[in-house]
Amino acid sequence: MALANGRNTGVSRFEDRDLGTQRIRCEVGVPLAQQQELGHNRWHPEIPPLVTVRPGEDLILETPGYDDYQLLDDDSVADVVGIDLSRTHPLAGPIHVEGAEPGDLLVVDLLEIAPLSGVGYSCIIPEIGGLLRDQFPAGFKSVWYMKGNAYAESRHVPGVRIPALPHPGVLGVAPSHELLETWNTREAALTADGRAYGPDPRNAILRGNTSTEALATAARTVPPRENGGNVDIKDLSLGSKAYFPVFVDGGLLSVGDLHFSEGDGEATWNAIEMDGTTWLRVDVIKGGATDHGIETPIFKPGPFRPQFGDRYLVFTGFCFRGHEQHSNDCTIATREAMLRAIDYLTRFGYTGEQAYTILSVAPIEMKVSGVVDVPNACVTLHLPIDIFDKDLLPRSLR
Amino acid sequence: MALANGRNTGVSRFEDRDLGTQRIRCEVGVPLAQQQELGHNRWHPEIPPLVTVRPGEDLILETPGYDDYQLLDDDSVADVVGIDLSRTHPLAGPIHVEGAEPGDLLVVDLLEIAPLSGVGYSCIIPEIGGLLRDQFPAGFKSVWYMKGNAYAESRHVPGVRIPALPHPGVLGVAPSHELLETWNTREAALTADGRAYGPDPRNAILRGNTSTEALATAARTVPPRENGGNVDIKDLSLGSKAYFPVFVDGGLLSVGDLHFSEGDGEATWNAIEMDGTTWLRVDVIKGGATDHGIETPIFKPGPFRPQFGDRYLVFTGFCFRGHEQHSNDCTIATREAMLRAIDYLTRFGYTGEQAYTILSVAPIEMKVSGVVDVPNACVTLHLPIDIFDKDLLPRSLR
Amino acid sequence: MALANGRNTGVSRFEDRDLGTQRIRCEVGVPLAQQQELGHNRWHPEIPPLVTVRPGEDLILETPGYDDYQLLDDDSVADVVGIDLSRTHPLAGPIHVEGAEPGDLLVVDLLEIAPLSGVGYSCIIPEIGGLLRDQFPAGFKSVWYMKGNAYAESRHVPGVRIPALPHPGVLGVAPSHELLETWNTREAALTADGRAYGPDPRNAILRGNTSTEALATAARTVPPRENGGNVDIKDLSLGSKAYFPVFVDGGLLSVGDLHFSEGDGEATWNAIEMDGTTWLRVDVIKGGATDHGIETPIFKPGPFRPQFGDRYLVFTGFCFRGHEQHSNDCTIATREAMLRAIDYLTRFGYTGEQAYTILSVAPIEMKVSGVVDVPNACVTLHLPIDIFDKDLLPRSLR
Amino acid sequence: MALANGRNTGVSRFEDRDLGTQRIRCEVGVPLAQQQELGHNRWHPEIPPLVTVRPGEDLILETPGYDDYQLLDDDSVADVVGIDLSRTHPLAGPIHVEGAEPGDLLVVDLLEIAPLSGVGYSCIIPEIGGLLRDQFPAGFKSVWYMKGNAYAESRHVPGVRIPALPHPGVLGVAPSHELLETWNTREAALTADGRAYGPDPRNAILRGNTSTEALATAARTVPPRENGGNVDIKDLSLGSKAYFPVFVDGGLLSVGDLHFSEGDGEATWNAIEMDGTTWLRVDVIKGGATDHGIETPIFKPGPFRPQFGDRYLVFTGFCFRGHEQHSNDCTIATREAMLRAIDYLTRFGYTGEQAYTILSVAPIEMKVSGVVDVPNACVTLHLPIDIFDKDLLPRSLR
Repeated sequence: MALANGRNTGVSRFEDRDLGTQRIRCEVGVPLAQQQELGHNRWHPEIPPLVTVRPGEDLILETPGYDDYQLLDDDSVADVVGIDLSRTHPLAGPIHVEGAEPGDLLVVDLLEIAPLSGVGYSCIIPEIGGLLRDQFPAGFKSVWYMKGNAYAESRHVPGVRIPALPHPGVLGVAPSHELLETWNTREAALTADGRAYGPDPRNAILRGNTSTEALATAARTVPPRENGGNVDIKDLSLGSKAYFPVFVDGGLLSVGDLHFSEGDGEATWNAIEMDGTTWLRVDVIKGGATDHGIETPIFKPGPFRPQFGDRYLVFTGFCFRGHEQHSNDCTIATREAMLRAIDYLTRFGYTGEQAYTILSVAPIEMKVSGVVDVPNACVTLHLPIDIFDKDLLPRSLR
Repeated sequence: MALANGRNTGVSRFEDRDLGTQRIRCEVGVPLAQQQELGHNRWHPEIPPLVTVRPGEDLILETPGYDDYQLLDDDSVADVVGIDLSRTHPLAGPIHVEGAEPGDLLVVDLLEIAPLSGVGYSCIIPEIGGLLRDQFPAGFKSVWYMKGNAYAESRHVPGVRIPALPHPGVLGVAPSHELLETWNTREAALTADGRAYGPDPRNAILRGNTSTEALATAARTVPPRENGGNVDIKDLSLGSKAYFPVFVDGGLLSVGDLHFSEGDGEATWNAIEMDGTTWLRVDVIKGGATDHGIETPIFKPGPFRPQFGDRYLVFTGFCFRGHEQHSNDCTIATREAMLRAIDYLTRFGYTGEQAYTILSVAPIEMKVSGVVDVPNACVTLHLPIDIFDKDLLPRSLR
Repeated sequence: MALANGRNTGVSRFEDRDLGTQRIRCEVGVPLAQQQELGHNRWHPEIPPLVTVRPGEDLILETPGYDDYQLLDDDSVADVVGIDLSRTHPLAGPIHVEGAEPGDLLVVDLLEIAPLSGVGYSCIIPEIGGLLRDQFPAGFKSVWYMKGNAYAESRHVPGVRIPALPHPGVLGVAPSHELLETWNTREAALTADGRAYGPDPRNAILRGNTSTEALATAARTVPPRENGGNVDIKDLSLGSKAYFPVFVDGGLLSVGDLHFSEGDGEATWNAIEMDGTTWLRVDVIKGGATDHGIETPIFKPGPFRPQFGDRYLVFTGFCFRGHEQHSNDCTIATREAMLRAIDYLTRFGYTGEQAYTILSVAPIEMKVSGVVDVPNACVTLHLPIDIFDKDLLPRSLR
Repeated sequence: MALANGRNTGVSRFEDRDLGTQRIRCEVGVPLAQQQELGHNRWHPEIPPLVTVRPGEDLILETPGYDDYQLLDDDSVADVVGIDLSRTHPLAGPIHVEGAEPGDLLVVDLLEIAPLSGVGYSCIIPEIGGLLRDQFPAGFKSVWYMKGNAYAESRHVPGVRIPALPHPGVLGVAPSHELLETWNTREAALTADGRAYGPDPRNAILRGNTSTEALATAARTVPPRENGGNVDIKDLSLGSKAYFPVFVDGGLLSVGDLHFSEGDGEATWNAIEMDGTTWLRVDVIKGGATDHGIETPIFKPGPFRPQFGDRYLVFTGFCFRGHEQHSNDCTIATREAMLRAIDYLTRFGYTGEQAYTILSVAPIEMKVSGVVDVPNACVTLHLPIDIFDKDLLPRSLR
């Protein structure tokens, strides 16, 4: 029905906000393979564009969560244990930007990152498990409800309320053939011994492209690379402006794997994972990647990140443990800081899995505080304490 | 259609996010008088409740803008000039909260404030005109598009991008009969000489209540009072927790007049005014108003306000102008700070009306910096400079 | 060596930091009239410059507190009751900046604001008393120790720790003869009925200038005016860059009345008042005041203000009280917000005088939230709650 | 009077601020071995306490920089090349806290961290060189003047102004004999191949303790460990509250190696290194380390860190480079992020050494953004862009 001022209305609410901007839809609950619009789940230079936009134009893209609607809103871990990760990540795109050429810089403004169904998930997946897979081998799932756009809450992790820091886990451009080959060669050895995700044609979707060769060589979207991709950077959030080097004509931008919030590091391998909507604006700086020497993405963050002032409790991690010593290793120091924080939280009644999950979904800061005082790299974990409904500062218990 | 995990889907997107929370709908473009659900536009103790909730419960409420859908997305000011303000403000409510009694404190968590149609308005209305009505007697309208939930832009005020600071202009509880009578008595003299809004039965809507006496005495919603109401406080935004003294059984909370953003003072009498959705949670502190001596609302702000660091340009206003001197008058000082900032902005190419509008819609801070150094009260206007697409700091022009 | 008020001095540390920068000294405990260097305590175009600097040059200036060393570190109010305010404010200056002319903009970088003796005072002075003089007629004094440069504590206001927000209460330039005459004319009526501070030759000091005419017409430094002066703006703090219109050749900048911290409004008429050191850098934008139309000072704040995130409790004040109604009066609304906050604090064990003092010395924000919803202007008082050693949020007491 | 390195000293100002607090002095320009008070430069359980304090008591401690006054305010790198690091770090302490016992938690409030001489240094030391020693093998020195307590500037790195974020590089407690032995055993293998700093009796100072055995086994202060020590955490700054597990009776706290500012990671091995004053307050939570399971220090940051809002440019680093691939290695990713940022800065006219220095002294954030998306760990480097006097955002250069 038409209104006096030319706007349309209906049962939809969000719908009313399109204002003429093109929208690519995701049907809630439907896997990528059955979606009408969208989508791909591998990186390849020859994925047929989903849409073409001009520099300066807006676009709205809806996407499933990284799980491709395999996870269920229940209290079982059957879905977690049985998850098929070859379907990860269902992406919207690629977007062809008119005039973008190799050597240019693609500029992406993140104008909106919002939940679609409003249900999110955070899992500890057996054999994936994240940074502490050795400590937490069993499956665990927490279901998060975004009640409004300010906070998420979970019946599986009581006493904590996670403020919104919405961001796309995956945002990136297509590699050139040459870059794709570099990736496949570079990662081959690690893939061979199970430490990387090599190409996998199972469930691979490249939109119209069904070439056997393309499906067999297209890169998995799990690791971030020169093209951005699954960077999982929590600060690349609402209001950010990101800059990507362009490797193929049109840039071929894609987005997906939205997170309601995440802690630096995304320790368990899961943020609060959600289906959602990304409203973005694209632009091009001609020759910008070449002229500024940009080889991996850079960005300017947005002004909307939740502010905690000095209300953090900071844990230190170093690359030693008891009698074990490593040489200036920040990865080990990151692990140690996580373990120190988990140990602390369990004394306030959380299980290890809950504490581990909190550190992966709450907007913790994980900083490389020292990396030169050999042999002990120092990583600090900054935990915002006002997300808890109790006071977490140290106190006398005697 | 039903999904594997029990969620429903449809053309709607936002719809999917209800998660069982009760929602009161506003049909976009339809005036309050024709809305199915909602609503009232006056304060009175005997407005039949729209809905009853238990302490701790959530609720979603949709509302028209303050203009009750009179404003149009066009480039004319005919709608502004002809606006009928007796229809202001169309509110959703009242909400009866079980167990709330006079002397209690009603606690309201603001879990979401979001645009409905995505089109907002900011007007300078002739004869209303705001703080500087003498300076800007003509009508002016800017139409703002919320392109995403991060920023709003207007073709009528180019070169500026307003970051989201969504908040309800009106949030308040019903007065008791005694309090209502106090208001009407207290404001009578000012109403008589046109400096206040006395009761006005024209277009008054009290839901089922059509008692002539009620319509004739119900208070206008324009001024804020002991019950909160049209407080127009920009910091009472997403994620805030507000506390209201309860004056009648059930509290009878109402909300409306949503703003996408506003500057302290709301100088023109208009923020970026929008129809929208408020997701809130209510609770009760028994005896809390009595025990803490709370006579007007208090609140704790949310953590999501846009952050500008030190990127402000601050203008000073005092209660003098040329040879004219006032005695420690903060209202005059506020005016002066506004005039100083408008004068500055016009030198960067803005018209006076545009500059005045920017100060009313951008999240400026307007602080009572000094109120004791007689005779010159000092008010400072803190203008965030990164909302502009040019550099606004003073520089050599010679 | 012993000082008048019992504080000790000795061998230097700070001295080591001069790095060649010229320093004007204040001897601790010595009134302005007996100081070797410095100073003046009135505004007049013909005060002989203390020092001349070139644009871009640094300068270190030490000053007594506003009390000119009349206040003592004891538990009596005899000094408060007997204070002679004709000695207010002892300033360092004027600084002649080479090449500055009327119409230029004088740029002042605040590179350091630091305590000198480390003892500060905050008083409620009978008959001055600040905004709530009617409520608190008696004298009250709190002595604050800056233990380090992070916090101040007082034995007279227990349970609260005030974070540093150091700033000069007075920073300004000399008026022209014409401007001085405007001031004296403009304020004459208010001076006549005791609502302003007219010229007062008692204890007036203009450095070498002892002309009877000058002493009789020089302006008191109490009110801020076009030249800046006693602006008492807490956000004009460490790291700020301030811009002043120039009215006389050389600009003739002066500084004094340092504050360790202050709340917006400086309600009691006293911040944490201290003797201290100001390190500043001056520069000139030729024609800048004329070209940008700057008639009163503007500034860009510094990045060092203490951050409290969302840890504020916000009180609302309106221009009514019970059955009394004012017309859109921000001064009254400011008073009401103060009274609401004081009332709240007294329920946590503070006396009225202590609560009033806290609101004057802690970095509260006092915002003109609404000034158009006639007849009720709304001012909000934002109290940072982490300065207290107890939790101040509302709670059930039953 | 003239000092070894050309700085002057004289009569005091800071002294006036003691307010009865005990102060341990450092004579500017005098090496630890000749200082009257202070000090030690190794960790050992049997260093005779410098002073004893009660829980709740304040103390002021002055210390040389880490260089023990070897660095000179000149434009040569002779001092850098010839620096004797066996004199590192000259510390003030140990402080014996009455009643502190193993298993307790020592609480340290940082009330002031201030420059002493006001001259700071930041060096790239050949063969030390920091994280990028392979890229920058030559010596480099920048001399920084703290002109006021807000900013530091260097003639060797023009166009940048570093805001104050003062903090102690070293803050820690004495190890027990058992813990010391663990350290020496644990680090022995790395010491043997030059990747750690084993005990070194040359220039070792343990206050009165001259036992050959103690000097031969006392731990170097370079690496941080369970006792805190040289944590070099920039956020452990002014206003922080730190918590240390106690290993020996009295706790035996020491402090030194003050920094005016530092970037996360302290990439070059040097922050802006300064002699300075630490004002601290100590307290004890009995059994706190045991009860909370605290094995390495934790802390709550202060509210005074400089605020930059969203004014950062963020660089990404991953654990690959060209055709070289590492397995989920955060140390490599940190290096890569540094190299990306340095490359970017050199296009704005900085030399590599200058850019490297900026990243080590400016308050950059270095975050472990992703550590689970195998094989590519992602570290982000957040560079505050307002420290530069030019605009650093990417732009069209064509």
